[in-house]
Amino acid sequence: MSESSQRRIIIFDTTLRDGEQSPGFSMNLAEKLELAQALVDLGVDVIEAGFPIASPGDFEAVQAIAGKVRGSTICGLARCRDEDIDRAWQAVQKAEHPRIHVFLATSAIHREFKLKMGKEEIIQRAVASVRRAVGYCPDVEFSPEDAARTEIDFLCQVVEAAIAAGATTVNIPDTVGYATPAQMHNVISALVRRVPNIGKAVISVHCHNDLGMAVANSLAAVEAGAGQIECTINGIGERAGNCSLEEVAMALRTRHDVYHAQTRIQTQRLVPTSRLLTSITGMHVQRNKAIVGRNAFAHEAGIHQDGMLKERTTYEIMRPEDVGFTMSDLVLGKHSGRAALADRARHLGYNLSGEQLNKVFDGFKVLADKKKEIYDADLAALIEQQSRTVAEHWTLESYDLSSGSGRTPEVTLTVRHGDQVQTTRMAAGDGPIDAVFLAIGKLTGVVVTCKDFRVHSVTVGQDAQGEVTVEVEYGGQLYRGRGVSTDSVEASARAFLNAINRIAAVSVSADRPAGK
Amino acid sequence: MSESSQRRIIIFDTTLRDGEQSPGFSMNLAEKLELAQALVDLGVDVIEAGFPIASPGDFEAVQAIAGKVRGSTICGLARCRDEDIDRAWQAVQKAEHPRIHVFLATSAIHREFKLKMGKEEIIQRAVASVRRAVGYCPDVEFSPEDAARTEIDFLCQVVEAAIAAGATTVNIPDTVGYATPAQMHNVISALVRRVPNIGKAVISVHCHNDLGMAVANSLAAVEAGAGQIECTINGIGERAGNCSLEEVAMALRTRHDVYHAQTRIQTQRLVPTSRLLTSITGMHVQRNKAIVGRNAFAHEAGIHQDGMLKERTTYEIMRPEDVGFTMSDLVLGKHSGRAALADRARHLGYNLSGEQLNKVFDGFKVLADKKKEIYDADLAALIEQQSRTVAEHWTLESYDLSSGSGRTPEVTLTVRHGDQVQTTRMAAGDGPIDAVFLAIGKLTGVVVTCKDFRVHSVTVGQDAQGEVTVEVEYGGQLYRGRGVSTDSVEASARAFLNAINRIAAVSVSADRPAGK
Repeated sequence: MSESSQRRIIIFDTTLRDGEQSPGFSMNLAEKLELAQALVDLGVDVIEAGFPIASPGDFEAVQAIAGKVRGSTICGLARCRDEDIDRAWQAVQKAEHPRIHVFLATSAIHREFKLKMGKEEIIQRAVASVRRAVGYCPDVEFSPEDAARTEIDFLCQVVEAAIAAGATTVNIPDTVGYATPAQMHNVISALVRRVPNIGKAVISVHCHNDLGMAVANSLAAVEAGAGQIECTINGIGERAGNCSLEEVAMALRTRHDVYHAQTRIQTQRLVPTSRLLTSITGMHVQRNKAIVGRNAFAHEAGIHQDGMLKERTTYEIMRPEDVGFTMSDLVLGKHSGRAALADRARHLGYNLSGEQLNKVFDGFKVLADKKKEIYDADLAALIEQQSRTVAEHWTLESYDLSSGSGRTPEVTLTVRHGDQVQTTRMAAGDGPIDAVFLAIGKLTGVVVTCKDFRVHSVTVGQDAQGEVTVEVEYGGQLYRGRGVSTDSVEASARAFLNAINRIAAVSVSADRPAGK
Repeated sequence: MSESSQRRIIIFDTTLRDGEQSPGFSMNLAEKLELAQALVDLGVDVIEAGFPIASPGDFEAVQAIAGKVRGSTICGLARCRDEDIDRAWQAVQKAEHPRIHVFLATSAIHREFKLKMGKEEIIQRAVASVRRAVGYCPDVEFSPEDAARTEIDFLCQVVEAAIAAGATTVNIPDTVGYATPAQMHNVISALVRRVPNIGKAVISVHCHNDLGMAVANSLAAVEAGAGQIECTINGIGERAGNCSLEEVAMALRTRHDVYHAQTRIQTQRLVPTSRLLTSITGMHVQRNKAIVGRNAFAHEAGIHQDGMLKERTTYEIMRPEDVGFTMSDLVLGKHSGRAALADRARHLGYNLSGEQLNKVFDGFKVLADKKKEIYDADLAALIEQQSRTVAEHWTLESYDLSSGSGRTPEVTLTVRHGDQVQTTRMAAGDGPIDAVFLAIGKLTGVVVTCKDFRVHSVTVGQDAQGEVTVEVEYGGQLYRGRGVSTDSVEASARAFLNAINRIAAVSVSADRPAGK
């Protein structure tokens, strides 16, 4: 039960760790930095920036975020192994507020089949690891993995030992998304009641959504005494994802009468942050996604509309503007200046300055010549295209295409590679996009398999921009590419080249000595 | 608390009513019939087929489903008004098991602002309406709208009066998605404890997902004694949608140890039914959607993969095959016969026979000549294209296109309209798709505004088919169109013509006298 109306819940965001490791949601360094800054602006207390030992890329990203992002605690994940903890500390040590998060599975099934360790050994390992982390950093979180399926007596022992060793946060993960609200309430209540030193640590909860109950389970934990919720933007994460940050934050706010708890979340930043993640990953939320979906505040039925006109609260428990939906998103035209652009970009969750602002402004002027009205979504697409691209080894110079029913498309494609301009002309493929894709493979010499291809209109109307997202496989890895244009063939060519540039970027960085 | 391990929960699906009325999810008569049959095959107990008084189209759809679909109860919605109830009965009376569902708001805010009625008047109106419905049909459901925000004493009075008047199901809607699991548990427990005649009716629950808790709230109601859950495929519905059928069904099954309850749901039909709805509406579920999303069973992290290899249950609480994911979806080639096609289609949720099977088989042979391997998703796209089209006033004969960087595309488009073949040649638009769109507007004379344009690759590989979904506005109404081809320009042309055919179909039926 809640103790006071002043109670504050710590929001721990793991979009960059649990979210980023799920298929389709990988991000590069620049994208992770941009999202981390947006999480600070959103009011997130702790950013789990990655799992530093997992790969050199993960390490670099956590280190860069710790070095540059100010205003939130930056956390790195580690198994209960010395090299993991050392690596995590190396990555987070430059943070304003660093945190090391160590985890070790405790459930019977994980002990027996995965770890092949007994209970005593697990407690010893957990204690030694927490102590090692505390030696580096006063802010240490410990997670007994699969806690929701762990015998409650043993869980109490592990948690007590971890706190005694110096853990300042103990996190209870429902790793497989198996818990129910009543069960989660019971587990947290038992810890509060039975662990003698529980007052020395914050109890945290980390819920997965496999049975659709991640938000309710997190809130049940809060009711029982948890003080931190682990969650992600758009609820992304392993399998069915994690507790959705926007849903849990708005539930705490809307049902303050029940939970008597507050967060630091700036709720008007929820929709911009959700859109930023969508724009980075190309993965759209479904139309009926709570809080941030396109339909979340749409009242379609005549009866509802009638009620809304008489009194909003008959059918509306939250206002769209409270979560950052803007009533009208028509904002800029060809006469808009640099300051107006930067201001609007900030509203959308992008902090532009210096060279980046110049590049986006140049692109904006070109687009404004083609399009009368530049919507928020146009601007977001433009920023994505101009400012968040990887090193452009390959760029599109021009294309020319001829295609028709029942004949093989003919395409002439010209791309630039450094100082070199190369052209190919070929007749191939099942359609225009396929022809462009084959021509790019021929020109770049990078032969990939297309796993996913999507076009999404960014705005409405005749001169709408199309955003193309592709996912290609190369050397057993998946790479994403994005391209935007009012011409869908051009957007597709850009998306394929973007994917190939990402492949090239990885090949270059792989030449460097690995971090470990 | 559950009374016995034999307890059966009635699954009431409202995809065709609450789901269909939300923006982007409207369906035509043939689509509703197809989905209703799939719901029967899924094992749904009650299908809420529509709100007959809302429009002649709604009435026709409920009447057609009641006349043709066997194996589930067919329910029609009505306000507490004589004409609504009479119309609902007209629509459902031919059903094998008809149900009339009457509703009236009971919360203070709805009484005061929307209905402008006092408590006594509301009880009288509810009783009179239930009695009228019972006069037609023994199976009557009553819903006090916004029940979750209604004073508990008054709610008990209304429910008792409705049951005394003959209601056999009393449904507790959380109309605005405001409830929490503990609150829902309290409301249902209070009804069980305080309403003297509660044993004569089934308690039902209808939860919305605005705060992300629809599934947990529904299950809390079951724990407290509810015997029916109202839900939808993919969780669609007004605003953030309803309780997701697939999530609640799998939660009841996976946590049988907690809920001690069973349903008639054939869980292996969950993914096929979800995909059928997606294919009808063009609205995809997000990648991390629980149970039916593409990532729902994906184990990405190395640690998880390692655990899975050692013992599946370390990270897997449900098996993908239990919800209808097939391990390999490569099934048909050019030598496959009609029976194999029909069998595979049935597995995907489509019942093909007679003329429909012939049309799909013809299309399959054409596609198999172009594509070596026909995947499940190819087949589903083909069935959608061949069998579920509206009357084809306009069809694509051929296109020819020339387009390139920095120049206006030129397109020659030929369409058939009945016996007439018309061709236009024009240079217009910002890109190839825009040019095709403008040419179609010129040829058909139907000028629409494009509100949404999406391409989605149906399968992987070089010869993947692209599925184009468009949403256009005409006369203040939104219309959807879909087209599939290995050539994305051709698919786009088909999608636009499909939308225009839907507009034409409505214009024709609008000439008929309205139902009321």
